[in-house]
Amino acid sequence: MATMEEIARALGVSKSTVSKALSGAKDVSGTMRQTVLEKAVEMGYTRLPRNAAAPKMAVFITHMEYRQPEDFGYDIIVGFRKGAEPAGFQVQVIPLTAELQQEHNYDEYMILHGFSGGLFLGLSMADPWIAQFSVCKTPTVLYDNYISGNPNVTHVGIDNAEGMDLAVQYLKNLGHKKIGYLSIALQAYIYRTRYHAFFEALRKNGLPADEALSGSADLFPVCLQEHLPRLLKEGCTAIVCSHDLLAHSVMVHCAELGLRVPQDISILGFDDIPLCRYTTPPLSTVRQNRTGLGKSAFYSLSSQLNGVHLSSYQLHAELICRASCAKAKE
Amino acid sequence: MATMEEIARALGVSKSTVSKALSGAKDVSGTMRQTVLEKAVEMGYTRLPRNAAAPKMAVFITHMEYRQPEDFGYDIIVGFRKGAEPAGFQVQVIPLTAELQQEHNYDEYMILHGFSGGLFLGLSMADPWIAQFSVCKTPTVLYDNYISGNPNVTHVGIDNAEGMDLAVQYLKNLGHKKIGYLSIALQAYIYRTRYHAFFEALRKNGLPADEALSGSADLFPVCLQEHLPRLLKEGCTAIVCSHDLLAHSVMVHCAELGLRVPQDISILGFDDIPLCRYTTPPLSTVRQNRTGLGKSAFYSLSSQLNGVHLSSYQLHAELICRASCAKAKE
Repeated sequence: MATMEEIARALGVSKSTVSKALSGAKDVSGTMRQTVLEKAVEMGYTRLPRNAAAPKMAVFITHMEYRQPEDFGYDIIVGFRKGAEPAGFQVQVIPLTAELQQEHNYDEYMILHGFSGGLFLGLSMADPWIAQFSVCKTPTVLYDNYISGNPNVTHVGIDNAEGMDLAVQYLKNLGHKKIGYLSIALQAYIYRTRYHAFFEALRKNGLPADEALSGSADLFPVCLQEHLPRLLKEGCTAIVCSHDLLAHSVMVHCAELGLRVPQDISILGFDDIPLCRYTTPPLSTVRQNRTGLGKSAFYSLSSQLNGVHLSSYQLHAELICRASCAKAKE
Repeated sequence: MATMEEIARALGVSKSTVSKALSGAKDVSGTMRQTVLEKAVEMGYTRLPRNAAAPKMAVFITHMEYRQPEDFGYDIIVGFRKGAEPAGFQVQVIPLTAELQQEHNYDEYMILHGFSGGLFLGLSMADPWIAQFSVCKTPTVLYDNYISGNPNVTHVGIDNAEGMDLAVQYLKNLGHKKIGYLSIALQAYIYRTRYHAFFEALRKNGLPADEALSGSADLFPVCLQEHLPRLLKEGCTAIVCSHDLLAHSVMVHCAELGLRVPQDISILGFDDIPLCRYTTPPLSTVRQNRTGLGKSAFYSLSSQLNGVHLSSYQLHAELICRASCAKAKE
């Protein structure tokens, strides 16, 4: 990791020019600032907390609600703060727009704004910064996105294999033998992972892993109007869904088809979003510990700043039994 | 997590009896100590660092050398100490014998000896304590063993997928098109993982993933005398090995067969054991950062003590290019 002195020497300017440029001071020209920033990124400069007046971490968020306690991102941010603030970091939450990503190089942005590390929530593979994560120098944690080969980037998620194993074990113990699976778009890394984990869990629990008993689509209506009736016709007595929102729609649609949940059909979600307690019936699901995800993301950034580079880590999954699953009909 | 008061109340004895029993004091009978220990385990008591006079962590080690700097386990223990000691923990290294495991219940052992958490190095699935890791209450990290479903147990390893990807990319860039794979016993979790990761890496890099170009056996001689000649005959110009010791033997055997490494055949290992620098030629390999593994194991135990339960995490792999790989022969 380069120091300001080294950057100054490489550019043949004074250390104070480098320092001013990196802190965005007004009395350095735009061209000089850009030159210094680019050299800093090239030389692997990162804002170490011990060199910062007020150490800061950033949480970038996109495609995910987070402002209200019932939003999925809310508790993740709370958890991140619970880790970072006692350790002396200010945490800034930044809505990640496409414009922001197009206007700035990621490393330059982080240096210029004095961030020692960043957590990303809700990124999709179409986001412009994704390409930069293969080479960035800033300690970075990506939630539910996996970038291979850059020591500065860590992937965090929950253990989907364990989650699906808990779900399938539970349904098997309730006597279900034909368990179906419904998923939204399998192009997304996370939904592909869960899909494979589900069938692996069937095999592990000695149930036939028949991919015909599954359906996926980009749009909910296709899942509900095409795949769901097909799985019911095939004799599925339980259906695991790729995520809670889909599970909730499946429950509503089952009611419309005249089926009682859980007496006629058991439905299990994934994520444990706050909504699950209030659906009819309350949705059984696999919990992602959101506060834990946030806290551990800070631990992981702090581990990187201590020279230990995690490639990825998974939190334990937890089965939450509410009222949407019951014994299989004889 | 139960307190000493709660255990005392549940058993109808005084708190000081519980305290004495849990610290192994002599003026408590063996029967009483056992009763208290069993109740403590049942109630989920663990030795929290803040309640301990001298907080302690244990590193259990078996089937792995660690006493000399050139031993594989040495740097892992150094790394663990580097994390734990500045945080105020004493670290005790305990050779894990079958007798120790047969004589003691794991949780009871940890409580009785005042350990807040344990790291296990070199365990095999045949070790008696393996069964207890599905239910134990003590924060525990297993190196290269995966136990699903217990929030108190974390698996640590390096990112084998990334490591194999780096290895295959490197050989492909050197012009190798037929890359073979040799492995020791695929029954072991870690070697099975690497085997699958190797073929996944071939596919990812657009090379044919032909399992016929691989060989595995419980014994080195079978790998060397049966599989190696077969892979050579098939036209492999490079061979990736499941671990450095095997790669070293393969190099020696190639020399005996009159082949020059790397001019005639490229050999790549995995692990980066200290020996790799001293082989002829020095072995190119994929590094497991052993100090990082040790440090992060402490971070992970400490994260568990803070209520964040990791299921598993992987450190970044790193390609180390020495002299055992070269451009493929035209």
